Amino acid sequence: MGSASRFDSDVYRTRVARAAELTAGAGLDALIVSPGPDLRYLIGSRAQTFERLTALVIGADGTTRLVVARLELASVRESTAADLGIEIVDWVDGQDAHALALAGLPDHPQLAVSDAMPALHLVPIAQRVAATPALATDVLRELRMIKDEEEIEALRRAGAAIDRVHARMGEWLRPGRTEKDVADDIAAAIVAEGHTGAEFVIVGSGPHGADPHHEFSDRVIEPDDIVVIDIGGPVEPGYNSDSTRTYCFASPPVEVAEAYAALQDAQARAVQAVRPGVTAESIDAAARDLLRERGLAENFIHRTGHGIGLSVHEEPYIVGGNDLILRPGMAFSVEPGVYFAGRWGARIEDIVVVTDDGHEALNVRPHDLVVL
Amino acid sequence: MGSASRFDSDVYRTRVARAAELTAGAGLDALIVSPGPDLRYLIGSRAQTFERLTALVIGADGTTRLVVARLELASVRESTAADLGIEIVDWVDGQDAHALALAGLPDHPQLAVSDAMPALHLVPIAQRVAATPALATDVLRELRMIKDEEEIEALRRAGAAIDRVHARMGEWLRPGRTEKDVADDIAAAIVAEGHTGAEFVIVGSGPHGADPHHEFSDRVIEPDDIVVIDIGGPVEPGYNSDSTRTYCFASPPVEVAEAYAALQDAQARAVQAVRPGVTAESIDAAARDLLRERGLAENFIHRTGHGIGLSVHEEPYIVGGNDLILRPGMAFSVEPGVYFAGRWGARIEDIVVVTDDGHEALNVRPHDLVVL
Repeated sequence: MGSASRFDSDVYRTRVARAAELTAGAGLDALIVSPGPDLRYLIGSRAQTFERLTALVIGADGTTRLVVARLELASVRESTAADLGIEIVDWVDGQDAHALALAGLPDHPQLAVSDAMPALHLVPIAQRVAATPALATDVLRELRMIKDEEEIEALRRAGAAIDRVHARMGEWLRPGRTEKDVADDIAAAIVAEGHTGAEFVIVGSGPHGADPHHEFSDRVIEPDDIVVIDIGGPVEPGYNSDSTRTYCFASPPVEVAEAYAALQDAQARAVQAVRPGVTAESIDAAARDLLRERGLAENFIHRTGHGIGLSVHEEPYIVGGNDLILRPGMAFSVEPGVYFAGRWGARIEDIVVVTDDGHEALNVRPHDLVVL
Repeated sequence: MGSASRFDSDVYRTRVARAAELTAGAGLDALIVSPGPDLRYLIGSRAQTFERLTALVIGADGTTRLVVARLELASVRESTAADLGIEIVDWVDGQDAHALALAGLPDHPQLAVSDAMPALHLVPIAQRVAATPALATDVLRELRMIKDEEEIEALRRAGAAIDRVHARMGEWLRPGRTEKDVADDIAAAIVAEGHTGAEFVIVGSGPHGADPHHEFSDRVIEPDDIVVIDIGGPVEPGYNSDSTRTYCFASPPVEVAEAYAALQDAQARAVQAVRPGVTAESIDAAARDLLRERGLAENFIHRTGHGIGLSVHEEPYIVGGNDLILRPGMAFSVEPGVYFAGRWGARIEDIVVVTDDGHEALNVRPHDLVVL
């Protein structure tokens, strides 16, 4: 199963049944799911259709239909729709696909739609039901956030794969090369080490490291640069890796070493705080408080982490104000950083899973500033 | 300019001003545009943010604001926002970005949102204004459909680039290789010939050619296969190519040759029909009627074409029922096909632009069944 594009059908049967229960429990008539992470989660479909409507309709009564253009039937054939007995409603150009999605529902149904549904489809659906649907995330949140053992195993494989890429960094990351040269090599290695693609590659050298969302550029890497490498991508069946380490080429100046040591302590303290029963914001606070104690409060300019799974960024978000209680099976990044505008930055990122009595880290490369 | 990621700022200044006029003309208070083709069209931004709102708000009064997460400011820095004097409203995690997008508008504004806006942002916006927004396409349709000279020049470069890939097909397409082997080589050539990426690669060999949306598989190509190759991708600043040719490795059987000849006639007749003042559906009918005359009505199972530009598929759609009058500057595919389920298929596709007195074809490779 290790590299199949989906799990066994039984996994999806359970998920669809649970989604129907949650839909009923939320007082809704149906959940309408477009291509995207929710559709892959529910029936194992990687469909990526856009202008022609593809929609899985899960009724509160447990009935399920998959509306799909006849031309694009192949896009759902690999899914579990047939195994699960989901009715396929195919349509051809000229038919009203949005009406087909709503067929059999009450005249003014209470709906939820998946977060990824584009306005192109949501607007016609909302016009027909004369109401703004709710977001599926509000219905599926629990289901999507709590990973089952198969999902965690996929995330473990993803974590091990990206760790192998970091382990090889010295092959590519050298002064005199451009960020883009290095990024191209990393992207190839991400695939070579078992991902189906390189979802993102950040090579932030010197001042670029101070911009957390810098990708890469034609800047030539210099011998005294600090370099942030933040990389990841999906492994089958679609679960993502995401890990950051920070590199340099010589012993760093004292101020860099001190700030990095604080960052390392902050990241470790936040990871150690991960256990069932504490809040998401308490993990953010663990990192933030330590950096504040070391005088670096102003240098940590983003949230501490984000959930991960079929999406690189999903719930739970590890951010101030999120009082969600952590529970076993939640998976998220712990990635504080320190940023000095125009000069340098550093970040350390591991994916962790909440276990029954603490946490499991899925990235295990050393956390020191790596001197290549 | 040939390979810059955007046009000169004046191009976008005109577009934004025109969009504001159209917004006012439609009786709307504002247009809200998410990352995607509309945002690239209006301000040259390639931003791809998802869970953190990025939104260009164009007021009917001509005021413009760009709401963007502070962390993601870099994603809009390459755009013309600064040159155009668009107010940048940045926000940090914890702020209500959707409220920021609506700031300054009436309490119950009439809005349009871009087709690509995900439910994740559209639902909170619709809830705040207590109404379902319209689609921006209904406002921007004319503006987006009529390409200006710079856009047409970009489409010409895209067409020439994909023609160069088709010209090299014999390097890769051979019996004994898998569809995937061939697709990988084609994808590399699409980039080598000047595209920024391979947006799609269809290698439909033998029976797979009978599925118009087949991508590629591990099927080994056989000596007597007919093979459909449908490929394309963007060239800077974001305009797409899309061209199909059909290949084989020996003189085809009579029935294949006859059906292909009908297809070739149908495609040529449809292209010849393209001129200002006729309807989109008349182009579809030109191809369809000829295939019907040759007894192949049941074998042509999709519309004749789609508009192309910053999106691979956009308006105008060349389909029965679309009585849109063609005008100079419209660009679209003409791509009839014939499909014999379980056996073989063929398709011929060129991009054409409507000119003042007829049309210009942007793909000029021979239209015959290519014997490699």
